[in-house]
This record gives sequence, C-alpha cells and structure tokens, in this order.
Amino acid sequence: MRAVLFSTAGEVSVEQVADPRLRDASDAIVAIGAAAVCGSDLWYYRGVEPLEPGSRMGHEFVGVVEAVGADVTSVRPGDAVVAPFTFSDGTCDACRRGYPTSCSSGGMWGGAADPGGAQAEAIRVPFADATLVRLPGAADAATLRACLPLADVLPTGWHAMADCGPGAAVAIVGDGPVAASAVMAAKLRGVERILVLGHHEHRLALAAKLGAETVLGAGSPEEDAQSVRDAFGDLATTVVECVGTQRSVDAALACVQDGGRLVYVGLPAEGAGISLLDTFDRNLVIRGGVAPARVYIPALLDEITAGKLDPSVLFDSAVTLDEAPIAYEQMHQRQVMKALMTP
Amino acid sequence: MRAVLFSTAGEVSVEQVADPRLRDASDAIVAIGAAAVCGSDLWYYRGVEPLEPGSRMGHEFVGVVEAVGADVTSVRPGDAVVAPFTFSDGTCDACRRGYPTSCSSGGMWGGAADPGGAQAEAIRVPFADATLVRLPGAADAATLRACLPLADVLPTGWHAMADCGPGAAVAIVGDGPVAASAVMAAKLRGVERILVLGHHEHRLALAAKLGAETVLGAGSPEEDAQSVRDAFGDLATTVVECVGTQRSVDAALACVQDGGRLVYVGLPAEGAGISLLDTFDRNLVIRGGVAPARVYIPALLDEITAGKLDPSVLFDSAVTLDEAPIAYEQMHQRQVMKALMTP
Repeated sequence: MRAVLFSTAGEVSVEQVADPRLRDASDAIVAIGAAAVCGSDLWYYRGVEPLEPGSRMGHEFVGVVEAVGADVTSVRPGDAVVAPFTFSDGTCDACRRGYPTSCSSGGMWGGAADPGGAQAEAIRVPFADATLVRLPGAADAATLRACLPLADVLPTGWHAMADCGPGAAVAIVGDGPVAASAVMAAKLRGVERILVLGHHEHRLALAAKLGAETVLGAGSPEEDAQSVRDAFGDLATTVVECVGTQRSVDAALACVQDGGRLVYVGLPAEGAGISLLDTFDRNLVIRGGVAPARVYIPALLDEITAGKLDPSVLFDSAVTLDEAPIAYEQMHQRQVMKALMTP
Repeated sequence: MRAVLFSTAGEVSVEQVADPRLRDASDAIVAIGAAAVCGSDLWYYRGVEPLEPGSRMGHEFVGVVEAVGADVTSVRPGDAVVAPFTFSDGTCDACRRGYPTSCSSGGMWGGAADPGGAQAEAIRVPFADATLVRLPGAADAATLRACLPLADVLPTGWHAMADCGPGAAVAIVGDGPVAASAVMAAKLRGVERILVLGHHEHRLALAAKLGAETVLGAGSPEEDAQSVRDAFGDLATTVVECVGTQRSVDAALACVQDGGRLVYVGLPAEGAGISLLDTFDRNLVIRGGVAPARVYIPALLDEITAGKLDPSVLFDSAVTLDEAPIAYEQMHQRQVMKALMTP
C-alpha cells in the first residue's frame, strides 16, 4: 500500500510500504477513508522537532474495518469507525481513570515504530475494542469529513473547555484548528463570552462564524490583555493557549484574571513553561495537556449525529494521498488551515 | 512601641518605632496578643530574598482591638480578633470573586511600607470590617495560640486540600508547618491516605501524630515516587508541594499520577517552574498559590471552636518579642519549627 513517510525537514513523500496485517487477537485492520494533517505533524516538517527519516506520518483517521482479530467484539468488517490519535488497552489504571492517553500499553500512530501512520491506505489498530468508535451509518464522504475531527482536534477543543459553562468568559490565544474547535466546544457548553486572539483574517472569520468575538493582530501580552478587557470588561476567567510557544503562554498568562484558569492544549515547545512565582500570587489554575480523546468521542459523535455540531468546517482543503507533499507545504505556508486526505 | 525590624541577612532587631494610629475611617488598631514567624520571613533572614533594611517583620497575628475608625461596624474595642496575612477591601472584583489576596486596594503586613508588621506591640489594620475576623470569647493565651495559625499557615494547608475528599491519595512534599497544616486540612476533608515525605524526624513525628503516614529521608524524585508507590500502591492523586524549590517541584511532579493534581503552596523560589512539555502528556492540573486566607478563616475557626481542630500543635517554641532574634535564629537552624511571640 501507499503511505506518507517523513524524509527530512520540508519534505514528505508517498511510498510503497508493506500492507498492515493482524498481529494480536485484539487487533483490527482499518482501510483509511480519510486522514488529516495535524499542526503537530508540521513540527517535524518545519524541523522544530526531530524525526527519524522514513517514519510514518499522521495520527488522525476515519475509515472502514477490513478485518478483526479473534477477540474483537465491538466492531466488525464493514463498520465505519473513527480512532483517537492514540490507541489504548482500556483496562490499565490510567485508562480506567479516564486517561487513555497515559495507557501503559498504548501509543500514538505514526513515527518509526509499529503500528504505522494514519496518512496511508490502511492501518493496524491495536486494542480495537478499546480504541475504535463505530460511526452510525455508511462511510460516505460527508460523514467521514464530519467525523474525522473526532480523532484529535475536536476532543482537544473539548478538553480545553472541560470545566467551562455559561458564566465563563473565555479568551482563546491562537486561531488555528484547535482554537476553532475550542470555540465549537465553548458554544456546546453554553459559554456566552468567547474571544479569539489571532493573526490571520480568514481564520478569525471562521471563529466569528462559529460564534466568537475576534481580535486581529494580537501583539504584546499587555496588548492582548487590553483586548480581553475591551471585550469582556475584565480579564478572562479561562484562557485557552492553543499555540504552545513561550510567547503564547505569556500572552495567556496576561489575559487571565487572578483565580482563573490557564488551559494549555497546544503541544508545548521545548522549554515553554511557567514560572511558579509569577502564578503564585495570582492563584492561577494551570490545566490541560493532551486530550483523552477516546473518552470524549462518543458524546461528541452524538452531537454531530444530532446535527448540533459540524466540525467539517475545520477543513479548508481536500487532497489525495498522493498530494500529501502539497498539503504539507500549503499548511506550512498557512495557505491552508487543515487538509483532509483521501487515499 | 517595640517592633521587629530587619537589619540584614542573619539579623533582626527589636526597636522602638512610632505607635500606629487610625488613619482612615475603615481602620482599626489592634494590640498584638501573639505573632508568629513564618517560613517566608526566613527567606529574608537567610538572604534568599532581598529586603530593605529597617523593614517591619511579620504578617501573622492575633490580638485585641484597641480603637476603630468611624466606619467600622464588625469589631469594636476589646474584641479578640485574627487577621489574615493580607488586608483587603472586600469590595473589589477580586475580593468578590473570593480572592482577597488579589485585592486591588490590599496588601501584606510587613515590609518597608505602611501599615507595619505583625511582630510588634500593635498594628494598624486597613479595611477592618473586611480584614479582621472576631474570635469568640476572651483573648486568653490558649485561644490566641490556637487561633494564630488561622492567620496564614492553616488556611494555606486548607487551600492545598481545597478539592480533595475521601477518595484522594495525597502525598505532601515537605515537613514544615505548611505540610503539617495540609495534614490537618486533609483529615478535616476526610482524606484517608496521606503520606508526608520529609527530612526531619521530629517534624515527621508531628505529621504522624496528626494522622499521616511518613517517609524519612526523601531522596531523588524517583526515590520519592517509589515511596509513594510503596505507601499507596500507586502514585498520588494529589501532591502538595510545600517547599517552593525546583528540587521539591521536581519531586512533586514525580509523585503524582497522570491526570492528578500538583498543588503548590510553598512560596516558590525565583526560577522554580514547570516545563509544560513535561506535564502535557500527563494531563497534570497545577493549582495552588497564595491562600485566600480571609475566605477560609470563619469555617476553620468554627472547627477550632468546636474542638475538632487544634492547630496550636504547630508551635514548638514561645518567646517574647524581645527574644525575636533568638526565635529567627532557632527557626533558621531548624531547631524550632514555628515560634510564637508575645509582646
């Protein structure tokens, strides 16, 4: 089959690789119906994070089950499914506590190791019962497009909003797909005051369409804080940091009111951090991290199925697997926010 | 009157200073019945944090109201009172949100500025209605000793345990007065599994007496984590970091389970911090900061009055104001855990 492989910074290629095969009795093989490119894939493409040449790319996919191992009971061949960006056994202490991303037997798709990447024609899914979620109905293009964000970006936005409700005043630092997902999650949770601080007019237009106020041209942390004050009459009760750079963390710290929450869901850059002396007097709660997507998918899928949520708006580009190099370059250049890829 | 002044690292002195006087209509003058030395006072004494020579020392006191301004209605001369370690107006946005420590008109006792320090014969209390809490009954020595920890250390322990209940498994890094207060708070909240990791046998004996398991000789973060696993069969759901050094923060990070809480209530040292990349995959919640003591005092006072709580055990030394230099040196040498000082 074909799969997207990492070559070097600025270069991915589509190559022939071995077809995935059932290995364990709890495995499934899924024919990829659509995969996405994540902002974190770009960290390798941009050379910000190192990656072994030849590594498989991609960790967001929806598809159709092709084959299952003897122990798999929750899905069967022909079922349309979505997978979170990590696989997990569903039985370890971390899984039972609701953190499948910390599963002692789990892992993430892509990279140099088994079981392969999502930007491919097919993939082996370990612990299929615990990992996959069945989609209702057929795997038509519209369903796949609407459900693909369940793999990562939408649960990430939901994770950011996990403890927000109508009374919150939420500022979102960043205007990419995670920020847009956070806006959707905030709306689902009844948050009435949402401000997105970003740098890209067309991305902010999407945030506005989803129901947020927006500020273009975020500047210094102090200017960002003033933008929040202008919008809310006060600093934010919760700030969602969607970028992961120290600059963005500093902006988020400036935008949140004392006693408020700094939620970080952007993969942090090496070295980005918090000085506790800065947050001590302010009683900030710092929470977030990698979204336990598998836990959130069923409820979010229900919202999509009920027509209350359409995350397909996150995709502003659709390409074929063979066009992966173009999709990466367009996302790198920020000509495209998020690309969907079909084999 | 006499007051304790900071001279230079390693030296405090008791000097004659001007008597405090009512300045604003919301002021009260309180005759100090007992003051305490806080671990954070030692930061100056040890030269870890700079302080202007001649600054007043101390921010923990109980006493008797001597005089009140025209607008004061909640206390009157003769009332026994406790003050939190900060004064606050009770009306600003931060106060109304429950964070008097972030009061826009508030401040902390001690230092170079008005209204003076608690290690003295008397003190001016701004915003007396919002700041002071009346103690029931007379200002006898036993009451003052039991209620003095309400000023800071006991609410700090309570703040650390603010969202813990019976199901929590709490590890406490440090064995000083804040750690002992956290144990008392954990017991009040019904936490059954409490482990204190410390370095001082006699301090751990107090923690044990208060109901905690203890480990002497905490070593590397990995050894600390193993101690927690040995005690709980797993890492802690909440770790309370009571020291404030990077070493202690690193130990706390090692001791908490993924998805758990790192609570920091030890005043952080300059530069002590969290690398977000370290906590991202683990979904840690980092919370804490300076305790909004004024909010917690009434309920904690009720527990003391009801005989359910006796924080007087935190004091293992009682000296006169004139002996302040001895008390500082003994605490610095860790011969004494916490000193009570009477004028």
